Amino acid sequence: MSSSPEPADPFDQRRQAVASGLAERKLDGLLVAFSPNLRYLTGFTGSNGSLLITDGKSILFTDPRYQIQAAQEVTCRVKTAKGPLLMEVARAIARLGLKRIGYEPARMTCDAYESLKSRLPMRASLEPVKGWIEELRMVKSPAEIARIRKSVETNSLAFEQAVAHVRPGMTEQDLAAELEYRMRRLGAEKPAFETIVAAGVRSALPHAQPTAARLKPRDLVLVDMGAQRDGYCSDMTRVLFLGAPTVKMKRVYRAVLEAQLATIAAVRAGVSTAAVDRVARKVLRGYGLDRAFVHSTGHGLGLEIHEPPRLGKRDKARLQAGMAITIEPGVYLEGVGGIRIEDTVVVTENGCEILTPTSKELRAI
Amino acid sequence: MSSSPEPADPFDQRRQAVASGLAERKLDGLLVAFSPNLRYLTGFTGSNGSLLITDGKSILFTDPRYQIQAAQEVTCRVKTAKGPLLMEVARAIARLGLKRIGYEPARMTCDAYESLKSRLPMRASLEPVKGWIEELRMVKSPAEIARIRKSVETNSLAFEQAVAHVRPGMTEQDLAAELEYRMRRLGAEKPAFETIVAAGVRSALPHAQPTAARLKPRDLVLVDMGAQRDGYCSDMTRVLFLGAPTVKMKRVYRAVLEAQLATIAAVRAGVSTAAVDRVARKVLRGYGLDRAFVHSTGHGLGLEIHEPPRLGKRDKARLQAGMAITIEPGVYLEGVGGIRIEDTVVVTENGCEILTPTSKELRAI
Repeated sequence: MSSSPEPADPFDQRRQAVASGLAERKLDGLLVAFSPNLRYLTGFTGSNGSLLITDGKSILFTDPRYQIQAAQEVTCRVKTAKGPLLMEVARAIARLGLKRIGYEPARMTCDAYESLKSRLPMRASLEPVKGWIEELRMVKSPAEIARIRKSVETNSLAFEQAVAHVRPGMTEQDLAAELEYRMRRLGAEKPAFETIVAAGVRSALPHAQPTAARLKPRDLVLVDMGAQRDGYCSDMTRVLFLGAPTVKMKRVYRAVLEAQLATIAAVRAGVSTAAVDRVARKVLRGYGLDRAFVHSTGHGLGLEIHEPPRLGKRDKARLQAGMAITIEPGVYLEGVGGIRIEDTVVVTENGCEILTPTSKELRAI
Repeated sequence: MSSSPEPADPFDQRRQAVASGLAERKLDGLLVAFSPNLRYLTGFTGSNGSLLITDGKSILFTDPRYQIQAAQEVTCRVKTAKGPLLMEVARAIARLGLKRIGYEPARMTCDAYESLKSRLPMRASLEPVKGWIEELRMVKSPAEIARIRKSVETNSLAFEQAVAHVRPGMTEQDLAAELEYRMRRLGAEKPAFETIVAAGVRSALPHAQPTAARLKPRDLVLVDMGAQRDGYCSDMTRVLFLGAPTVKMKRVYRAVLEAQLATIAAVRAGVSTAAVDRVARKVLRGYGLDRAFVHSTGHGLGLEIHEPPRLGKRDKARLQAGMAITIEPGVYLEGVGGIRIEDTVVVTENGCEILTPTSKELRAI
């Protein structure tokens, strides 16, 4: 499936890392069902699975639809269950005599919890384990970075191919369709999130969905897009001007670009996420635009489009080499328009590498 | 946003229906955060929202990213919160003096439950409410059926447009990209699920993801696709033959088509879902193929691609007029190939209406 280098079985190594951390958490086993965590630990891409990791072995539970696929994708033991997976999980817990089983409280529904708990042997207990696998996922391996790079390149190439067709009269939806089509033809499985194409005043909505509105001459068009390739996400925002921008928007563009470049220059291992966020706000304050920057400066990405760390005002995590993050300051002026410029970068010991190859020069077409 | 007829404010009517059902459930309020349920009750299309319904009024909580959008989409009161939404919800519960608040245990995570519970006043309690909104959503209004019909038509037209380009040498991914592109250009927001294109022996995997494998002469190609349009889903499966099928697969095709037609003929209000499922299995048994039919016969669809009711062996619900369901028997022969034929239909008092206009004749191209 992948052309990236990957050690013999990274999944087995990851499961072993978890297994060897069970004792210090006073756990006999860990149950993982959240799909990106499951994929990280097994390579399984199906939509229904539960992984039970113990010190001796791991078992992936899935349903018969995925029997053949799981056998192809997964190196640990696979058990297919005809009924509810959690019933099989409970049986395995009983059979293995596990006492304290960790679960993911941020990912498990109340119903699933009650259903599992009611089926466990008397002496077994469920223990909440918060963000353990997410924490392991924060720092990417070289093979993971290679996949993110490929995803970023696919995304940027799709952008260039689609932008060549942009013209007034085309709808926001048409352009979004074109961007996603190019992405897929270039090898992405799908968009990493719903592509944003927002023209004119709608660009002031940070999460606009593309509409049937047509692009007009002199519109600015905000495009926020990402690919998912080999499971890994990319994320990029660029703004296009259909004709020369107004003096006002040219100034806003300059401010956001300056903020984005200054923020990227501040990224390196050891710096706190809040400090990185502050750099963007400080530059925008110099332009009197900081109050129009209504979201955080960036976020981690990988198997999910939004992962820890978050780069916002109140975030205290420190950047580590190998983290893949976005840097995306923006300014939104209601009734006028919005500008956001976003790259995907990888944190290094002394700075960062910008993966996104797309130009950030003001682009008027 | 929509061209379908819709009463003045169906969302207000739905919220009132819920509000008037609170008393008999001994509830002072209901908290809804599951996105399709939220959309059903408010029209809100953002990704982060919580709705609190009480007998007097409803409040939608969302974050500042969706402030402008929520004001445009929603008729009830909207409150934007800078911090975690559940903190605002808890404050509102305290302010309104609510005692017993229903929540959705199949949709709320353990973390969210604990977080909300810890912030509630002493005398307030959270009460699990299972599937209430999902039950309301099962029977569609005429306006909803109009939207599903539009989604089905969009999907079928995209299929025809893309099939005109199918030829050996194209990859499964290329065809999936083409199908999704056509769908979007015809007005869909996005695919309702990941489009399945599975050629040759891979068609025996009921949930195959499209790969870079190229279509070969004499391959059979299974396509399972659906659109999401105006929020509503469609779902269709067809099989294409690149050249004349083998005698064996021709027989399997005939068996599956016969099963599908017989099953559709059995659909009408009042029939149990298990009885409908049995019809498909019985026809396939006549061909000695019932053991190769490894999933249920169908499922409801609407704002979600899979909704109640499910049409499987052990399902006891009875069909009601206005339910939109799929009928999709299939036969999967490992190492040989799979055939599935699927339509979207609407249950009526005396039978059903097949919404899917696409021919089910064996199609060799």
